[in-house]
Amino acid sequence: MDPARRSFLAASCGLPFAAAFTAGQEKPNADPLPSWNDGPAKTAVLDFVAKTTREGSKEFVAKPERVAVFDNDGTLWCENPLPFQVVFAFDSLKRELPKHPEWKDDPAVKAALAGDAAALLADNYKGLLRVLGLTHAGMITDEYDRRVADWLKTAKHPRFDRPYDRCVYQPMLEVLAYLRASGYKTFIVSGGGADFMRVFSERVYGIPPEQVVGSNALTKFELRDGKPVLIKTSEHAFVDDKDGKPVGIHQFIGRRPVACFGNSDGDKAMLEYTTIANPRPAFGLIVHHTDADREYAYDAKPKSSGKLVEALADAPKRGWVVVDMKKDWKTIFPG
Amino acid sequence: MDPARRSFLAASCGLPFAAAFTAGQEKPNADPLPSWNDGPAKTAVLDFVAKTTREGSKEFVAKPERVAVFDNDGTLWCENPLPFQVVFAFDSLKRELPKHPEWKDDPAVKAALAGDAAALLADNYKGLLRVLGLTHAGMITDEYDRRVADWLKTAKHPRFDRPYDRCVYQPMLEVLAYLRASGYKTFIVSGGGADFMRVFSERVYGIPPEQVVGSNALTKFELRDGKPVLIKTSEHAFVDDKDGKPVGIHQFIGRRPVACFGNSDGDKAMLEYTTIANPRPAFGLIVHHTDADREYAYDAKPKSSGKLVEALADAPKRGWVVVDMKKDWKTIFPG
Repeated sequence: MDPARRSFLAASCGLPFAAAFTAGQEKPNADPLPSWNDGPAKTAVLDFVAKTTREGSKEFVAKPERVAVFDNDGTLWCENPLPFQVVFAFDSLKRELPKHPEWKDDPAVKAALAGDAAALLADNYKGLLRVLGLTHAGMITDEYDRRVADWLKTAKHPRFDRPYDRCVYQPMLEVLAYLRASGYKTFIVSGGGADFMRVFSERVYGIPPEQVVGSNALTKFELRDGKPVLIKTSEHAFVDDKDGKPVGIHQFIGRRPVACFGNSDGDKAMLEYTTIANPRPAFGLIVHHTDADREYAYDAKPKSSGKLVEALADAPKRGWVVVDMKKDWKTIFPG
Repeated sequence: MDPARRSFLAASCGLPFAAAFTAGQEKPNADPLPSWNDGPAKTAVLDFVAKTTREGSKEFVAKPERVAVFDNDGTLWCENPLPFQVVFAFDSLKRELPKHPEWKDDPAVKAALAGDAAALLADNYKGLLRVLGLTHAGMITDEYDRRVADWLKTAKHPRFDRPYDRCVYQPMLEVLAYLRASGYKTFIVSGGGADFMRVFSERVYGIPPEQVVGSNALTKFELRDGKPVLIKTSEHAFVDDKDGKPVGIHQFIGRRPVACFGNSDGDKAMLEYTTIANPRPAFGLIVHHTDADREYAYDAKPKSSGKLVEALADAPKRGWVVVDMKKDWKTIFPG
């Protein structure tokens, strides 16, 4: 981690991992993953980074090839009781609805008002895309960014009573910082909207906008009152989920990752793309939500998104590390 | 420039700029742009970098915001007698045509066989996309990469008698290296195909695949014989030219650049997006092809792509620097 980045993180996040990591740099033997309990998952992360970054190691990976991809919902932050962008969409819809009584007959709007996330996410996010289109198409990107930022400042998670961007997993923040300090470039590859995630990714995760791959639609460029603006549209929508994840990785990153972190069957394709027959050493990890007390416990029957059946079944034969959240994580959220 | 990157460039490119730049680092007063003649264009580049990177300068730009975007055809390498990717498409077509006699009736194929680049590039690249679709859709991305790499190894520029990837502009390689050494992240933003450019961008320009924004279409993911592959398709094609350039910048980079380098009206929108009403200091530069002896001379009536009328007319009022290739560049190509 270069000093500029470290001071940037320390200054702008104020998160414990930045401090922990600084300590780790000064004392090379200090633990870079202090929020992880000792066990096979922690050991696997440490071993993979060590062997791919040690000069002379037969599994050494050259710095430009050190690409690590992370799902967001359920991997870096919670996805219950609803994916947070869905909550944002609902809140936006409720705010705009009085101005648009005609929306009430729209099936997607009905599903949203009923809080039916499953209906909105069905058929490759069709309903959600419709709601996002209704509430945000035609909006200038700067205005959209402001709305997301304002929402993050005011909205709170119903169970944890903290801003949504503080419902992030401390152990994963440590993995992100550890990988970057080891010369890895960290990317988000998520079904969430790229424009949505980019509002907070740098501040919260230390991941700059240009390393955020997400669902997206085209904007439209124009000079308005002589000033350049980009207007959000619903056109050319791409859903960065399931098989769309390796497709998005190819489109945005243009090379195969060597490390992939996910938590659901939506991440199975990018885990496969990363780890099967990769000419470089490769690493796959699944966060298994097993902690109903401190967070949530789900897999085959998730409360919202995050169904995990096939990827979990494939984990042993693929060599994917499965994190048992309850057992492997000392803490869940930043203090 | 960190040592790893410098040694990477020195080792893998062997280009003069890497050596020049190393020397520049050791003697801080050495010229980072040795292939530029003294004059207003060179001074403008040096001044912009100095004022945006000097701590305490009122025009200081924080490191994460130092995003510089470069057009490729006509800005980093030649675009005559034809854009090089068009030559590649023609060569691919000629190779595949015997297997597909039915292609002969296709208007795009006819235009290609007649060498009519203007017809292929008309209507937002419609004909070229058709030819690329015919020759490459259904191909695995790894195979496509191999074909581009093989073509670059064997094909030669008809006038300069050197591989196409050596028909790059030495003065611009120096700008790229100088910006990176000054903490800028350099991106290509080009109408050329992202998959095409990514084959050589890291080796030739020091720009990694994840910083290449170009025209693209979706791939399709599948496990073939148990191994993950991505198959090229013609679906969801996006042309990263004209108004598509700021759209592509938003989609792939997610923030406004502070420096933009182009050479044609196709770059006007991204020059506007970069420089007009940008809350940060911003820089725009146009390479004007004025050197028929050493390269080519064109603007209003280009030989292929690269029409330059509107952007040139707007340059004075927008403050865009216009490079007079004949006057401002000491050398054109790497030695």
